[in-house]
Amino acid sequence: MTRISFLGPRGTFAEAALRTLEIADRADLLPAESVHAALRMVRAGESDLALVPIENSVEGAVTLTLDELTNGSPLVIVDEAVLRVQFSLLAPDGVELTNIDRIATHPHAHAQVMGWLRDNLPGAVVLPALSTAGAAAALLEVPRPFDAAIAQAIAAEIYDLRILADDIGDTKDATTRFVLVARPGALPDPTGADKTTLSLFMHDDHPGALLAILTEFAVRGVNLTRIESRPTRRALGDYFFSVDIEGHVADARVAEALMGLHRICLDVRYLGSYPRHDGKAPVLRQGVTDADFAEATQWLGQLKGN
Amino acid sequence: MTRISFLGPRGTFAEAALRTLEIADRADLLPAESVHAALRMVRAGESDLALVPIENSVEGAVTLTLDELTNGSPLVIVDEAVLRVQFSLLAPDGVELTNIDRIATHPHAHAQVMGWLRDNLPGAVVLPALSTAGAAAALLEVPRPFDAAIAQAIAAEIYDLRILADDIGDTKDATTRFVLVARPGALPDPTGADKTTLSLFMHDDHPGALLAILTEFAVRGVNLTRIESRPTRRALGDYFFSVDIEGHVADARVAEALMGLHRICLDVRYLGSYPRHDGKAPVLRQGVTDADFAEATQWLGQLKGN
Amino acid sequence: MTRISFLGPRGTFAEAALRTLEIADRADLLPAESVHAALRMVRAGESDLALVPIENSVEGAVTLTLDELTNGSPLVIVDEAVLRVQFSLLAPDGVELTNIDRIATHPHAHAQVMGWLRDNLPGAVVLPALSTAGAAAALLEVPRPFDAAIAQAIAAEIYDLRILADDIGDTKDATTRFVLVARPGALPDPTGADKTTLSLFMHDDHPGALLAILTEFAVRGVNLTRIESRPTRRALGDYFFSVDIEGHVADARVAEALMGLHRICLDVRYLGSYPRHDGKAPVLRQGVTDADFAEATQWLGQLKGN
Amino acid sequence: MTRISFLGPRGTFAEAALRTLEIADRADLLPAESVHAALRMVRAGESDLALVPIENSVEGAVTLTLDELTNGSPLVIVDEAVLRVQFSLLAPDGVELTNIDRIATHPHAHAQVMGWLRDNLPGAVVLPALSTAGAAAALLEVPRPFDAAIAQAIAAEIYDLRILADDIGDTKDATTRFVLVARPGALPDPTGADKTTLSLFMHDDHPGALLAILTEFAVRGVNLTRIESRPTRRALGDYFFSVDIEGHVADARVAEALMGLHRICLDVRYLGSYPRHDGKAPVLRQGVTDADFAEATQWLGQLKGN
Repeated sequence: MTRISFLGPRGTFAEAALRTLEIADRADLLPAESVHAALRMVRAGESDLALVPIENSVEGAVTLTLDELTNGSPLVIVDEAVLRVQFSLLAPDGVELTNIDRIATHPHAHAQVMGWLRDNLPGAVVLPALSTAGAAAALLEVPRPFDAAIAQAIAAEIYDLRILADDIGDTKDATTRFVLVARPGALPDPTGADKTTLSLFMHDDHPGALLAILTEFAVRGVNLTRIESRPTRRALGDYFFSVDIEGHVADARVAEALMGLHRICLDVRYLGSYPRHDGKAPVLRQGVTDADFAEATQWLGQLKGN
Repeated sequence: MTRISFLGPRGTFAEAALRTLEIADRADLLPAESVHAALRMVRAGESDLALVPIENSVEGAVTLTLDELTNGSPLVIVDEAVLRVQFSLLAPDGVELTNIDRIATHPHAHAQVMGWLRDNLPGAVVLPALSTAGAAAALLEVPRPFDAAIAQAIAAEIYDLRILADDIGDTKDATTRFVLVARPGALPDPTGADKTTLSLFMHDDHPGALLAILTEFAVRGVNLTRIESRPTRRALGDYFFSVDIEGHVADARVAEALMGLHRICLDVRYLGSYPRHDGKAPVLRQGVTDADFAEATQWLGQLKGN
Repeated sequence: MTRISFLGPRGTFAEAALRTLEIADRADLLPAESVHAALRMVRAGESDLALVPIENSVEGAVTLTLDELTNGSPLVIVDEAVLRVQFSLLAPDGVELTNIDRIATHPHAHAQVMGWLRDNLPGAVVLPALSTAGAAAALLEVPRPFDAAIAQAIAAEIYDLRILADDIGDTKDATTRFVLVARPGALPDPTGADKTTLSLFMHDDHPGALLAILTEFAVRGVNLTRIESRPTRRALGDYFFSVDIEGHVADARVAEALMGLHRICLDVRYLGSYPRHDGKAPVLRQGVTDADFAEATQWLGQLKGN
Repeated sequence: MTRISFLGPRGTFAEAALRTLEIADRADLLPAESVHAALRMVRAGESDLALVPIENSVEGAVTLTLDELTNGSPLVIVDEAVLRVQFSLLAPDGVELTNIDRIATHPHAHAQVMGWLRDNLPGAVVLPALSTAGAAAALLEVPRPFDAAIAQAIAAEIYDLRILADDIGDTKDATTRFVLVARPGALPDPTGADKTTLSLFMHDDHPGALLAILTEFAVRGVNLTRIESRPTRRALGDYFFSVDIEGHVADARVAEALMGLHRICLDVRYLGSYPRHDGKAPVLRQGVTDADFAEATQWLGQLKGN
């Protein structure tokens, strides 16, 4: 049975995201205490796959995940899941909205429900917890360390709590993107609507380095969907670029761009090619389909008399 | 007397960074409970300046600060400070390393001392706190909610605690960059070694948008020192770019690049020109000094018969 | 009365082109024996203007003219004329198609009527002449040095000859572009449909030089309509680029591009801004109109607190 | 025996250039009356190779040759020769410098000796001839149609004339580059110091077309040594670009650039890869040697699990 580690405990957004993937139906789901731990389990062979958050529509990149994937032994992304982030106010039986003094949640969740709290529970004290699900779980302790937790609705079911208020996030369309990660092996087949994730290290911090990278992509008609500069841990003041591009390494335009980057970069860390969750195929400009590449290769062969 | 708000409470890294700036010597320092609050005080006229963190050598950009500066009424950066981040283990009199069971600190600090804790206090429980200084301050409560706090050394002095272990961060050369922020007004004079910070919004998410931006800089010989893509709050899936460039808006090459960006971007949010903390002047390529721009302007005037 | 020198003698295509310009109606037209001579007359103040060929749709650039304009004391183009090039077979009274043995014309004209000659006068000998009009004029000599001339139809009228065959060129839509040249002075007013001609000298022959030049134009949305590399006479193996661009030096985008070129080039020789003969206004991309530049300048002024 | 056609008649610069190539020692040299005729002989199988001029350090590109190679059935350049262009004044026995009234030469040669004529034979009439060698040959006619010819020194030997003045060109270091042309077949082996010649047709006349072409070269570190825009004969106002680049189609960087151009251009006419006459190897930037390409291909294979 496939074993999938995920950022736990039970009831986190990561678990909810994992459950949107078909593979989770027939897998052993193993909660881990941190992104680091979830990925370490895959690296150590204690799990086959790991699901970790990589990007949030409000907070941006999950830099911890980018760094963990970029450093250490090779891992590749094989799938992604996007989950709408919804927060609920959860409490045990007997607690009502009118008698809540102390609430616990993760600081990031706190940041996203401040408006609702100001309007509805202006007097409540908010305590930090290590995860939203952890805050919900703690409500089972005796004595109860606080009155309510802000977490996702699924945690109510898991920890036998009641939902006092639903969908209380200040940004209604917040989403988080999660990636499913494996040790390198057979790549997912290209679907025509894929993404590839890369970490690109420059030879030095010269001004034109990023322009050179973008030109390698642009010349082959490869579009970027995300770019971040991240401090390397190799040297102080040194950056690498974390990018998502449209397409699969099996696509000729992506393959040629990757080889071009490999030639000009200090290091290209390939983090996988995988189907887009939204199935949206790229709009390609003229001359960069696989057929165009194949035709050009044939033409060149004729020139060279092969 | 100048009033400067900062990310509090007393004893935070922000306060330590603020104290490295000369202006703090003769100013009223006002702790604020969050980055949002520190900036709101400037916007509301309750303080004249605010010092907030913007970038960390381990964690990367402080996205909350970037977003707060980019949205809301205009603010500009007028100075920066860079602080080496050092963590200490602090406890009240009577607590020794051998009898610590429970430690509190901010989750980000926790992440940066995990190696030390594993080696030195493998059995201790770590509780999350809203800030490192807040964890230190809570040690004065009776009864003591936990045995020790991980915070910076200055907090020992402020809260009358002892330093049980010093410089316990896993990355010895971690630094955080802070910016001093004001309402728009007279700009700091150019020093020859300045930075300018911008938030750039694209017209649409077309593939060449970032290439176009970088080309506007490259053509005028303007170097980037930082770039981040950040989700806008204006529309889902929409990004803006947060960049730092070398130079001052009073420099001709920077001024022309800014006007070029203003013409091709949906919006350019100017976040200030200010002296670099390290005083490092840019290495300019041929043809982009103020003298070169002035000479070209004069030449054009002659062509046009002016 | 305005004096205009032109590539003579009377009856050349240059004269025909000159007559399409309004200014020729009330001017003294002075034939010169060469492009060099026509331009020297302007330089020496012996004429006010000169009309010389610069580009042919079959032959390409008239390199002699490009070089003459680029070297020597400054001259600027103030207008252009485009003439359809039509060749006729001319002869004195008494000569018929059936009794022509020897024909004279300029070698370039010869090259353009070879097909017609092969089909219609396969046995005739073709003698080189210094100009097509010169060949026509020589038919007045006694004894006649040859039987017929290939020249333009207008020469028949001037030299009292008959047109034995009309429009005999192998390429029916061949055109030649002529430019009207003056000493530097007040520039022609911008019309909204202008061209600017430049000669660009590089600092050295480095591979990216041309890319750098084109980028200076592209960043300001300035389109090229012609580009030639030409050997400089300054050093062997050294090239300069002769370009025509859309727009007038009074247009903000052109002015900024010219200043940018001036900063990166060894030398920018400005050869004038003048109305296009076809009145075709450029299609401008977003952000590069004069209004866009003015608005950006105003925006920058506000940032700088001016 | 190899048959080589060249721009004749006997005694032209083309013949002199041809004699600098080893292959001419054991070949049958066939003078042709024009560039068109020399190339037509190769196309028709009447000769195996043709030597024609392609570029002159004073006049620039020989546009006729560029056009003849670009249109019609395929031909490829297999070698080049560069000849210093020296003009001499030639006359039959009995003619001295003091009794010359009429001189014949080709108009291009006339243009290059005008200074010398002004200083030494100010009163002489200069008659146009179809070639410099043709002018020399005509001095054998009886009666002599003129007194002297301006041609190259070798013509004195061929036509039994005397050299009255040697090296009379106004530009002492003028050179002409000739190319040796064949029907497509086995390519010359790469030597490490090669050139490749191309004619590039755009899909339409959009402003960025040339920038796109140059970027295809620049991304693969391929340097240009010559570029011309030339009118196509396919449509009025339409241009193609004639370029020489450093390197051989057997070089990986050149091959990839050619395939890239093939994908974005309407048509790429390959005109051959051949050794440079000066044996100068290109200075390559990092990452574009054949070894770099091979290493990148191997790396990609590993990523893809091949």
